[in-house]
Amino acid sequence: MTEVKTNSSITAPRGFLAAGAAGGIKRSGKLDVGAILCPDGATAAAVFTTNKVVSAAVEVCRENLQAGGAKAVIVNSGNANTCTGETGRANARQMCAEFASLCGIAPESVLLASTGIIGEQLPMERVTKGIELVCAGLGSDAEQGNAFARAIMTTDTVEKEAVETVLISGRQVTIAGCVKGAGMIAPNMATTLCFLTTDAVISAGMLQKALRGAIGDSLNKLTVDAHQSTNDTAIILASCKAENEIIDKDGADFACFYKALNALCKKLAKMMARDAEGATRIFQVVVKGAKTKSDAAKAARAVADYDLVKCAVNGGDPNWGRIICAVGSCGVELVVDRLACKLDELTVFKDGRPAKFDRALAEKIVSSPEHRITVELGAGDCEDFCYGCDLSKGYVEINADYHT
Amino acid sequence: MTEVKTNSSITAPRGFLAAGAAGGIKRSGKLDVGAILCPDGATAAAVFTTNKVVSAAVEVCRENLQAGGAKAVIVNSGNANTCTGETGRANARQMCAEFASLCGIAPESVLLASTGIIGEQLPMERVTKGIELVCAGLGSDAEQGNAFARAIMTTDTVEKEAVETVLISGRQVTIAGCVKGAGMIAPNMATTLCFLTTDAVISAGMLQKALRGAIGDSLNKLTVDAHQSTNDTAIILASCKAENEIIDKDGADFACFYKALNALCKKLAKMMARDAEGATRIFQVVVKGAKTKSDAAKAARAVADYDLVKCAVNGGDPNWGRIICAVGSCGVELVVDRLACKLDELTVFKDGRPAKFDRALAEKIVSSPEHRITVELGAGDCEDFCYGCDLSKGYVEINADYHT
Repeated sequence: MTEVKTNSSITAPRGFLAAGAAGGIKRSGKLDVGAILCPDGATAAAVFTTNKVVSAAVEVCRENLQAGGAKAVIVNSGNANTCTGETGRANARQMCAEFASLCGIAPESVLLASTGIIGEQLPMERVTKGIELVCAGLGSDAEQGNAFARAIMTTDTVEKEAVETVLISGRQVTIAGCVKGAGMIAPNMATTLCFLTTDAVISAGMLQKALRGAIGDSLNKLTVDAHQSTNDTAIILASCKAENEIIDKDGADFACFYKALNALCKKLAKMMARDAEGATRIFQVVVKGAKTKSDAAKAARAVADYDLVKCAVNGGDPNWGRIICAVGSCGVELVVDRLACKLDELTVFKDGRPAKFDRALAEKIVSSPEHRITVELGAGDCEDFCYGCDLSKGYVEINADYHT
Repeated sequence: MTEVKTNSSITAPRGFLAAGAAGGIKRSGKLDVGAILCPDGATAAAVFTTNKVVSAAVEVCRENLQAGGAKAVIVNSGNANTCTGETGRANARQMCAEFASLCGIAPESVLLASTGIIGEQLPMERVTKGIELVCAGLGSDAEQGNAFARAIMTTDTVEKEAVETVLISGRQVTIAGCVKGAGMIAPNMATTLCFLTTDAVISAGMLQKALRGAIGDSLNKLTVDAHQSTNDTAIILASCKAENEIIDKDGADFACFYKALNALCKKLAKMMARDAEGATRIFQVVVKGAKTKSDAAKAARAVADYDLVKCAVNGGDPNWGRIICAVGSCGVELVVDRLACKLDELTVFKDGRPAKFDRALAEKIVSSPEHRITVELGAGDCEDFCYGCDLSKGYVEINADYHT
């Protein structure tokens, strides 16, 4: 009997090859160059950091995305290629050109991303070596998809990949993805990279719409330390091999695709929170009763970003006062006498006054691997949420004791 | 020969009595009630937190300040009287009434502040006992002013007090002040309280103007963890005993007074940074070349608040990439190719590209007790600054391991 191996990597959808290789950019000798190739071409969409200082990789990736006709993604870890001026842009273009030349495709069909140390030029000899190795290793097996997921890691302790399948117009459509680090890079910079593949037949416009929405409602709802990096990039490639009827407008098919993509991105976001630097616990903040959706999002994020809340979660301390303080200081509309707070289903604060509650139960909730904080603002009927993780001594250790 | 003792406490200016007492609000038995009395009446001004959730003490203090005729300040530590509803407001009013009754003054002439645990009602028996003891102890000696400074402490490790003198229209004017905690309260809430006394003859309007400006340019330029508490309060009382010509308009006299008050507040702000929870080093962020003053302030604060910068300072790591990342993500106008960064006088980044610098010297600068980070945005000619401190494992320990 043959063992059936499930592929939960980015090579799960039809039409994709991937690989990871070690070019020597990381001193550790770990994988540091990854590539995805869609030989027959792909529909592509991407979202990037809103930091005003961006990596040369982001600049060149944007250019190539505009050119259309994407067929591949090349990524390096260990160096962010950020704050590197014109030399950095030339190096980014060279990465695309070298990979394209080896694969026999056009340079502008190669999208790219970098992650790692900021302010140092790429060691191009090692990058070139990595690109050669990664091209030689391209394949459609789970191992090769997984190698890609490992090649984009920095301080991540585990690779983070997931897959979703969904029926669209009677055809099975597969969507897969992998992400790196909601924590910081050792030793330097927060970067989130997300690579998604699908075999869905979908137009570029609807793919961009789906990506923007799905990331907005998942990775963008995750805050580890409120830091947005210079390199944040999410790219999706659609090989269009699933033979479903083309998704080129809103409707049931798009809704199915979007729901699956969003579920996948939420899975990946939670994996990132669990693997955040020093994190021992994750939590979800739900804000209700906001005057506007944007107020709800702002308040949820304020709580999840609040160092004192994060420290309290680290200590298993049901310190709801810090939650209310975070909400009060973030500038959203609220009615003090209607404010309330729950930890999971346990009410700890209601109508602006402390509630009597079972202290031992509250501590148990906050000490669990994952809990939910619900805040009622009493100012309207809008709602939103955010994921967060605790702040531990481990976070400080990783980001203080390890030198550049 | 008699030993000459310098009074650097809030009783240094003429016309003030003060005291500190232990009513038992703090379980440690340390001083937890403080009072200042200006028997002949004072001109008063105050600034408060902008958090939308405020302590009952802040609400009642605002009311009494509006009433005019301030003669005293009563403060308790160990309990913030916040999120305590109508009972909390009644307790705050009772504190004023009890103190006023013992001193023979009107209840609305008493200003007040609280600091400590949020969400618990004040233990009024202990508060009353503290008020009785503090009234019995009132005096104008340095010891009594110092006892007040200790009575407002929470996780502060030392009392923080300072004094300035200045000649105004030929008369010596004294300004003194004390502050508590830019760190967090064990185990609960960030609160900054600041009490200032002066014997200057000054109108209420000019006193308010001086206070707002001086705090804005000192305590408001200090960020420990970006948290604004529900209780932040700064109060200044002027006994008008210095016999200078009244300061009731802009001009040289006001400028002299303002300069001295600002210098005093900056001293207090630096003391707070040095005594912040877990802090081992402080730094000043200067942002130049901003399009507007508010952009400069925003960028300076973004750098000082950035956990990764704070961790790097803790580790003595000249990680300028994190500084640039903070600036890029805070939303201010900047020109990437003109960006620059200096550590003290050492250029580490210039014209958007890494500069060659002496790594050992950079580490020495960042590892010193205090250093300056200068960032050039290249977008204009406005400038502002902010003080910050490092983020250490000690901060996490204080705020995670110590339970409510």
